[in-house]
Amino acid sequence: MELLEQLCGIHAPSGNEAAMKEFILEYVSKEKKHWIVQPEIFSGEQFQDCIVLVFGKKPRTAIFAHMDSIGFTVKYGNEIVKIGGPKTQTGYKLTGSDSKGPIECEMDAPEGSKKSFYTFEREIERGTDLVFKCDFRQSKEYIQSCYMDNRLGCWNALKVAETLEEGIICFSTYEEVGGGSVGFLGKFIYEKYGIQQALISDITWITKGVKDGKGVVISMRDRGIPRRIYINQIIHLADQSGIDYQLEVEDAGGSDGLQLQAAPYPFDWCFIGAAEDNVHTPDEKVHRHDIDCMVKLYQYLMKHL
Amino acid sequence: MELLEQLCGIHAPSGNEAAMKEFILEYVSKEKKHWIVQPEIFSGEQFQDCIVLVFGKKPRTAIFAHMDSIGFTVKYGNEIVKIGGPKTQTGYKLTGSDSKGPIECEMDAPEGSKKSFYTFEREIERGTDLVFKCDFRQSKEYIQSCYMDNRLGCWNALKVAETLEEGIICFSTYEEVGGGSVGFLGKFIYEKYGIQQALISDITWITKGVKDGKGVVISMRDRGIPRRIYINQIIHLADQSGIDYQLEVEDAGGSDGLQLQAAPYPFDWCFIGAAEDNVHTPDEKVHRHDIDCMVKLYQYLMKHL
Amino acid sequence: MELLEQLCGIHAPSGNEAAMKEFILEYVSKEKKHWIVQPEIFSGEQFQDCIVLVFGKKPRTAIFAHMDSIGFTVKYGNEIVKIGGPKTQTGYKLTGSDSKGPIECEMDAPEGSKKSFYTFEREIERGTDLVFKCDFRQSKEYIQSCYMDNRLGCWNALKVAETLEEGIICFSTYEEVGGGSVGFLGKFIYEKYGIQQALISDITWITKGVKDGKGVVISMRDRGIPRRIYINQIIHLADQSGIDYQLEVEDAGGSDGLQLQAAPYPFDWCFIGAAEDNVHTPDEKVHRHDIDCMVKLYQYLMKHL
Repeated sequence: MELLEQLCGIHAPSGNEAAMKEFILEYVSKEKKHWIVQPEIFSGEQFQDCIVLVFGKKPRTAIFAHMDSIGFTVKYGNEIVKIGGPKTQTGYKLTGSDSKGPIECEMDAPEGSKKSFYTFEREIERGTDLVFKCDFRQSKEYIQSCYMDNRLGCWNALKVAETLEEGIICFSTYEEVGGGSVGFLGKFIYEKYGIQQALISDITWITKGVKDGKGVVISMRDRGIPRRIYINQIIHLADQSGIDYQLEVEDAGGSDGLQLQAAPYPFDWCFIGAAEDNVHTPDEKVHRHDIDCMVKLYQYLMKHL
Repeated sequence: MELLEQLCGIHAPSGNEAAMKEFILEYVSKEKKHWIVQPEIFSGEQFQDCIVLVFGKKPRTAIFAHMDSIGFTVKYGNEIVKIGGPKTQTGYKLTGSDSKGPIECEMDAPEGSKKSFYTFEREIERGTDLVFKCDFRQSKEYIQSCYMDNRLGCWNALKVAETLEEGIICFSTYEEVGGGSVGFLGKFIYEKYGIQQALISDITWITKGVKDGKGVVISMRDRGIPRRIYINQIIHLADQSGIDYQLEVEDAGGSDGLQLQAAPYPFDWCFIGAAEDNVHTPDEKVHRHDIDCMVKLYQYLMKHL
Repeated sequence: MELLEQLCGIHAPSGNEAAMKEFILEYVSKEKKHWIVQPEIFSGEQFQDCIVLVFGKKPRTAIFAHMDSIGFTVKYGNEIVKIGGPKTQTGYKLTGSDSKGPIECEMDAPEGSKKSFYTFEREIERGTDLVFKCDFRQSKEYIQSCYMDNRLGCWNALKVAETLEEGIICFSTYEEVGGGSVGFLGKFIYEKYGIQQALISDITWITKGVKDGKGVVISMRDRGIPRRIYINQIIHLADQSGIDYQLEVEDAGGSDGLQLQAAPYPFDWCFIGAAEDNVHTPDEKVHRHDIDCMVKLYQYLMKHL
């Protein structure tokens, strides 16, 4: 889990994903010689801070994993405002940096107030973005850290890459703030490769119907409603695979799937990922078995879908 | 009204429109020999569950009719969550099916609770979608059923098809949950046929300003605001036509028009349809005269716009 | 400021921007002979009521200025509903016209009611759109009028046009109601000119962190979060320019930037504009120094970005 620990510690809130892009590009360039198929790598200004990896000659399915995390932006005075939907709590440790140097400060979220603040030895420059300080914890059964959502989704994609023969992996940006890169990524893979099938490699929630340790989650819907015919096909394959999985039905929450559905290309999408406890806090916790099943199901689906 | 009754009884909530697609494709294939012009028919994977009918060599205007209905998804325990915005009320009859067979159950919507449940003799499989049971009622003046919104919009499009010489009909999906197919449908008809004019064949609401039996409704705005120049052109033609119509002005509600406006193509759109009472219940009620005017105005506009 | 006064008085709420289009086209046709570079002018049905001006052979950056204003639509009885988010207050003067002639009426916004009404000597036709009556006021330090947002943004673009050598200016529509033209404008300039850099020429708010008279505002974020790497580049250039500027950090508010980010093209965008007091009222007030800095910073950025 060394790779996952590294990913969880990278500073990359929505809009500022450059460090994740650099890390993944370097990782791919170093590791790909061990992979079964050498992917074609697309990045650069036409892709903003996104990365597209194309494996094989006839990819049929694309994995989307968003690189950005939730976080905070320093506003005026010592107020901070949210990037996406992080939980707030007095005492949470936040990190970042401005022109005066590195920052490690604490959150102050007064009871009954909707505003949050930082406490630090000096003023932080306006517009500086802060993220949860990473405290990566492993036990026999669980892995716990900030930003399992969605560094674990990225990690899953990189694991699947090792044995992937035909398929595409898109590392996207801005997901936690409603998207903005999935449109042009979708355009690229639809127009160049005719891709219409997508899997959203992301992390979902432990709920009344989704338990930790019971396998990877296939989401039948959240706020977005994917095409049933595609979901049924995936559930059918999951049954064949013998891998532990759980079905999710929610009416809230969204993902890059919503952005794909809104884009002017006929994409089918399905959210598949492990579920976490302590959502959007520094303590997101995922069961190892669910992670294991996530990788295996992606491997199976990328072959058979 | 046999066709409308059939349409209202088809199980096709948002995301699961395949049965409507099959029904319409079959209907068109059987009936088109009676039509003035034989349309070119586009469907298949590039169109998901949508259908595009193209009449004539130089179509100028496209009709959009969404095939999906509101409904419910079975969540955990016996809870159900909404697909779109259906009204809930204890006693409403719901139908569907899962791998154990057909389902006809009842809704339980406890006073003061935001949650709804089903009551049935057995557990229904997670993720099963349920729709209102169809009770199609005709009187001398009214037609009443679930899903007049938007099976009546589809029916209108199929009626207009009979005499259509130049124009396009798009049967879209996902409308009740914010869209997802209008983008690629718009792309297709804009890029292939240069279409920029759209009419949204959908059903609106009886309100203080819109009465039953007073003619088809031309909506000047809802949450979406179409281009005034196009609306004025349509009102001008409606005046010329001599057909009964009413003007609507709302600041809530949306349609496929909103999706068209958001798409990266320069579409003008106008919502035109009969108004119903008992919106989003099993008892949607529309006046026959308004239906009659709806078909006539579409026929007139498709010729003169 | 004669041009700005003219712009503020033009009737052009969202959806009804034709009069602004005509005015700007005429202005450009008359004035462009005094400009350093003669732009290529794109307008017409493919652009709805938008205008695109292209300066030079290799434009790198596009300015977006929305032409529409907030306003009201006449509903039923004497109720009026909002176009975008105008403030309401009894006594505000509204103007417009219907088939019976010109209208100057007064707003009635009863305390504690969410509804607003007009008071006029006769009934106004359903669907008529009304805007604030323009009362253009100049003092030594301030300019005050309705619709500084965004006629000042348009004025800024036309000032920058005078000396622009390479670059694009897009006059957009529908911004106050969530957009609808930026998608196809973005498509056009991305596909034809490879443009990926945008500046949003719009007006923002005086707040705790943004003061009048302290220079033009560079917004680091609002509801939308632009790419940090692009914002940093702009701030770096602003530092070099020596022009007074202020940094803004908000978590509410949006602009054409949000629409650009949602479009399926890899656009970077940054909102840059003067700040106003009395937002979305007939009394929007902007400091002359901030206007001055706005024009200068745009001139500098269009050259160096």
